[in-house]
Amino acid sequence: MLAETARCLEKIRAQRPLVHNITNYVVMNYTANALLCLGASPVMAHAVEEVEAMVELADALVINIGTLSAPWVDAMFLASRAAIERSIPVVLDPVGAGATAFRTDTARRLLDEFGITVLRGNASEIMALAGLNSTTRGVDSVHATDEARSAAVELANVYKAVVAITGAEDFITNGPKSARVANGHPLMGRVSGTGCVASSIVAAFCAVHPDPLVAATAGLSVLGIAGELAARDNPGPGTFHHLLLDALDAMETRNIEEKGRIAVSWEQ
Amino acid sequence: MLAETARCLEKIRAQRPLVHNITNYVVMNYTANALLCLGASPVMAHAVEEVEAMVELADALVINIGTLSAPWVDAMFLASRAAIERSIPVVLDPVGAGATAFRTDTARRLLDEFGITVLRGNASEIMALAGLNSTTRGVDSVHATDEARSAAVELANVYKAVVAITGAEDFITNGPKSARVANGHPLMGRVSGTGCVASSIVAAFCAVHPDPLVAATAGLSVLGIAGELAARDNPGPGTFHHLLLDALDAMETRNIEEKGRIAVSWEQ
Amino acid sequence: MLAETARCLEKIRAQRPLVHNITNYVVMNYTANALLCLGASPVMAHAVEEVEAMVELADALVINIGTLSAPWVDAMFLASRAAIERSIPVVLDPVGAGATAFRTDTARRLLDEFGITVLRGNASEIMALAGLNSTTRGVDSVHATDEARSAAVELANVYKAVVAITGAEDFITNGPKSARVANGHPLMGRVSGTGCVASSIVAAFCAVHPDPLVAATAGLSVLGIAGELAARDNPGPGTFHHLLLDALDAMETRNIEEKGRIAVSWEQ
Repeated sequence: MLAETARCLEKIRAQRPLVHNITNYVVMNYTANALLCLGASPVMAHAVEEVEAMVELADALVINIGTLSAPWVDAMFLASRAAIERSIPVVLDPVGAGATAFRTDTARRLLDEFGITVLRGNASEIMALAGLNSTTRGVDSVHATDEARSAAVELANVYKAVVAITGAEDFITNGPKSARVANGHPLMGRVSGTGCVASSIVAAFCAVHPDPLVAATAGLSVLGIAGELAARDNPGPGTFHHLLLDALDAMETRNIEEKGRIAVSWEQ
Repeated sequence: MLAETARCLEKIRAQRPLVHNITNYVVMNYTANALLCLGASPVMAHAVEEVEAMVELADALVINIGTLSAPWVDAMFLASRAAIERSIPVVLDPVGAGATAFRTDTARRLLDEFGITVLRGNASEIMALAGLNSTTRGVDSVHATDEARSAAVELANVYKAVVAITGAEDFITNGPKSARVANGHPLMGRVSGTGCVASSIVAAFCAVHPDPLVAATAGLSVLGIAGELAARDNPGPGTFHHLLLDALDAMETRNIEEKGRIAVSWEQ
Repeated sequence: MLAETARCLEKIRAQRPLVHNITNYVVMNYTANALLCLGASPVMAHAVEEVEAMVELADALVINIGTLSAPWVDAMFLASRAAIERSIPVVLDPVGAGATAFRTDTARRLLDEFGITVLRGNASEIMALAGLNSTTRGVDSVHATDEARSAAVELANVYKAVVAITGAEDFITNGPKSARVANGHPLMGRVSGTGCVASSIVAAFCAVHPDPLVAATAGLSVLGIAGELAARDNPGPGTFHHLLLDALDAMETRNIEEKGRIAVSWEQ
């Protein structure tokens, strides 16, 4: 799996997949820079007048509901439909699902209506979408990854999607099969937007690998390793914010082989 | 007052108050990161469909008019009403009041209609809201804090609110009582959004202290001290931008005791 | 030309021109900080209710279509009309023109209807606006500057505007006259928003120099030199992001004299 992860990263750098993000205002800049540092090509577009045309050019689509409003919901539906028609992967980031009905309902409607490829959230968001009486505290999780495992498996089976929970440890499942990624660093939780960045990086990996379970697992491992490399000298979170970008840019196959901590439930 | 300031910071870190920001696009990321580094939990939400539900979860609300549009004004009114009903503190940041009638009028309507807890602006904005013929030069102040003191006292008395002017020196008043904070560094004026960050930090302090005069004073002192610590090695403004986040994260009681420069008009 | 470039920068720092940006969400923070570091005063405002009032205060206007939507297009037209009436310079950044019809058409309508002062884009965007069958790959150029030279000259003649193509080398033309700037560093292409920042910096230079050909050339040279200075120690792109701001802030006449690489087609 580590060799496959490294190959995916090489492919991203060679092919520069165009990742179309309909994402929240808070993380747009950080997401664009993270995708560039990874080797992908980011674009942000959210107008109903153009999202379908932009999807025509894109290799993957990210729908992130972190700062939702009604016109954006319309654009998310148009873009998702266009992406499904073109068979490009769609990653849904249900930021704050469980916090407000507007977010929970929008995420559910997207899951109900489209064949979302990967649903990536924190434990509280995944539990909320599975109908467990979870409260997300705003956009931060109040649950650990393990508490949300069965919810993730259930959602994966219901929606025929890959579901990824990120946290201290990441859990990725397509229902029958699952993986765990033990990469990452606590500083990643001290910086706004690392979860959103994770979703966009997963989208880039989905653009170069046909199995979204493998792609999501590989992408989350690479981001986690970048977090570990960026944290080496114990920086403050403001400095870490940029060292994480540097680490994505500098990531080598060697880093993945040395630091990757992926456990999969399937035979390799 | 310094001991109380340190206690407030400890409480923020222990309780992680959820600060709901309806703020401008320019500073969303910086504000979210500053609140995280301080120890609070930030959330950004602005849709009329969900702001009331988000306020239900929040411990404080920030209304920042820095990139205003009509739908956002509607959301600001809904959220402010919900916050007042729940008796959580509301901090208003009248970015660019005086520059355009749209901004001045929106800020005044919010002040007229709701019991705003803290109004935090630069000298030009505070003078404009008091009806003085001030021109803000876009969003930057063209006046010093001292020129706006009487305007601040007047607004505080009229609106039964705490009014805070930030600048080279900060002045905070509830009308009868006032405080001065002499912390901070000129580099803070070289980075976009430090004023907006100040408003959100004041909101976090209001969430853990019942007297907004004390809370605003404490919050502005902590931010100012962070600015001093971040400027120690004379960085460029781009580097300072992140060192300020690091300094908020690393702030200790000792730093507050050593560097806090607060003068209050009331007995302690 | 280098001496004139240095004089322009001095004027910006002395006069602090107010640059009104109607720009995309991704780069708002970076643009505001870059303008502050340069010495200008940035303001962002996009509501139809206030853009004309803000233009009244402004010394230059930037229209950037990077995250377009219908209400913003309305605001862009109102603001452009107000700017033309006041005879302040207008810089148009056609981000992603060629990628979607919505962007191409909006950029063309702005060019058709108003006397845009400077059109600054990458090679693919300029070629798309000239009707060449170019595809921008999202918002990144797939062409080199030289491929777009004749398109730039044509657009400059048709619209009586200065057209600037930025890339590994920059080409700036008003039709009859042209300049080349060989400053810059590949890391600038690894950071989101340097093109958008270039447009806003050009606007600041246009605010202090009557000839937009000279202003655009000077501004692009200064930004390119800042890029070279920021890249000196071979930082990662995340770190470079902030060193570029530091370099704009620290830029001295000496740096311009030593590093400026400008070739002009006119006699000096």
